[in-house]
Amino acid sequence: MSAVFDIDDPADPRVDDFRDLSNADRRPDLPGGKGLVIAEGVVVVQRMLTSRFAPSALLGTAKRHEQLAADLAGVAAPYYRATAEVMAAIVGFHLNRGVLAVAHRPPALSAAEVLADARTVAVLEGVNDHENIGSMFRNAAGLGVDAVLFGERCADPLYRRAVRVSMGHALRVPFAELPSWPGGLDLLRERGFQIAALTPDPAAPTLATALTGDRVALLLGAEGPGLSEAAFAAADTKARIPMSAGTDSLNVATAAAMAFYERVRLT
Amino acid sequence: MSAVFDIDDPADPRVDDFRDLSNADRRPDLPGGKGLVIAEGVVVVQRMLTSRFAPSALLGTAKRHEQLAADLAGVAAPYYRATAEVMAAIVGFHLNRGVLAVAHRPPALSAAEVLADARTVAVLEGVNDHENIGSMFRNAAGLGVDAVLFGERCADPLYRRAVRVSMGHALRVPFAELPSWPGGLDLLRERGFQIAALTPDPAAPTLATALTGDRVALLLGAEGPGLSEAAFAAADTKARIPMSAGTDSLNVATAAAMAFYERVRLT
Repeated sequence: MSAVFDIDDPADPRVDDFRDLSNADRRPDLPGGKGLVIAEGVVVVQRMLTSRFAPSALLGTAKRHEQLAADLAGVAAPYYRATAEVMAAIVGFHLNRGVLAVAHRPPALSAAEVLADARTVAVLEGVNDHENIGSMFRNAAGLGVDAVLFGERCADPLYRRAVRVSMGHALRVPFAELPSWPGGLDLLRERGFQIAALTPDPAAPTLATALTGDRVALLLGAEGPGLSEAAFAAADTKARIPMSAGTDSLNVATAAAMAFYERVRLT
Repeated sequence: MSAVFDIDDPADPRVDDFRDLSNADRRPDLPGGKGLVIAEGVVVVQRMLTSRFAPSALLGTAKRHEQLAADLAGVAAPYYRATAEVMAAIVGFHLNRGVLAVAHRPPALSAAEVLADARTVAVLEGVNDHENIGSMFRNAAGLGVDAVLFGERCADPLYRRAVRVSMGHALRVPFAELPSWPGGLDLLRERGFQIAALTPDPAAPTLATALTGDRVALLLGAEGPGLSEAAFAAADTKARIPMSAGTDSLNVATAAAMAFYERVRLT
């Protein structure tokens, strides 16, 4: 059971890992980011507790501690209990959600590990917006996508905002970096994945006709630039979302959701 | 051709309609909101220019004026030309997009008008977040939805942030309020629309099997609470997005996009 310690002094060194979140804005992906992963709010903390990201500490109000009592039963990490005011002084802003958990970043999973039992995966290139990455993980979790693979130039899914927008699913849906790009797609082809590159190109087959594989990898590029020529060349097929003329491409997380949906629509 | 007037003094009364946007944050839906609709950025301004929201004035940099030259050819509204610094002093913050247009709110369309030639419409209840409303219009435009109908307790699609997030499609996709809720759904039923209420309920038929009408109205409630019992009772069928167990409902604009997609996936 998580031991409880009351924190009255915002300068208490035991809560240093929660300090100045908005200034430092923990970037586990950047040098100096200390590799810390932050979960905010009851639901995301609950998801962290059942993920491979074991928290080293929690910081929250007495009320949130009560709400999390059952979840904390087998947890070794201490719960630092503080008032909303003391919490605000520690993290540097008022935190509506009332509870935070912090985890050190565990070793990364390999592409081979996350692909082992996967049937549908998303493969991202150049998706460098933390909110889009977060939404993508939320949609992946909701629509039965088994893993997310990162090619080049993507934002880190463990960044605080990405974790929050994902509703904690960035901690639950397995992800890995491909060892090279786009050459690393061979890892998927060897395992029998059909590699489908999403595009607004009206000459491409629709998602509904293009996604024929039992195992499918959905290649997604950033809104605007889309996938690189190299990524298209490495794919088995293009696949298009039927779009109205004169509109923009959809937000990348929305486009992804439609491809994910196409894979589960009859289940 | 839009006449050009140089504005050097931020206090110039000719640009009063653009003043202090972030403070006032124009709420055409609220008393005192003055009914002004604001378009930001070249793309959204272009969409406003081809919408029923005829701008009364534009405010922008010289560079944006050049970019919009062709679009402004037949436009009577003046273009107030200013430096980025003067613009910032007028609107109250630095505006990356470099151009704004303002329109007075025209008379609302009626539900009968927007339904006339529609085949697929979205009907919203309790969707009170401007960003979700904006995303919904963007997705509606991209995926061939003909109109949006508002039931109770929805945010205004003409609010500045909603227009921006919609990429200007809130000005292009016709919308109307239903005269009563949920009784106003009769207007759709009389016109042969199948009324499908979206739900995460695992006992409901999937979107893929439920959407059988030639004309379809998709009922969408807010993320979290979902649709009211009265709305479900007024629908012809429930329709579910196949969701993984243990996940949250999807963002309402994303859920809507999937229903929109189901209607066009074979086109």
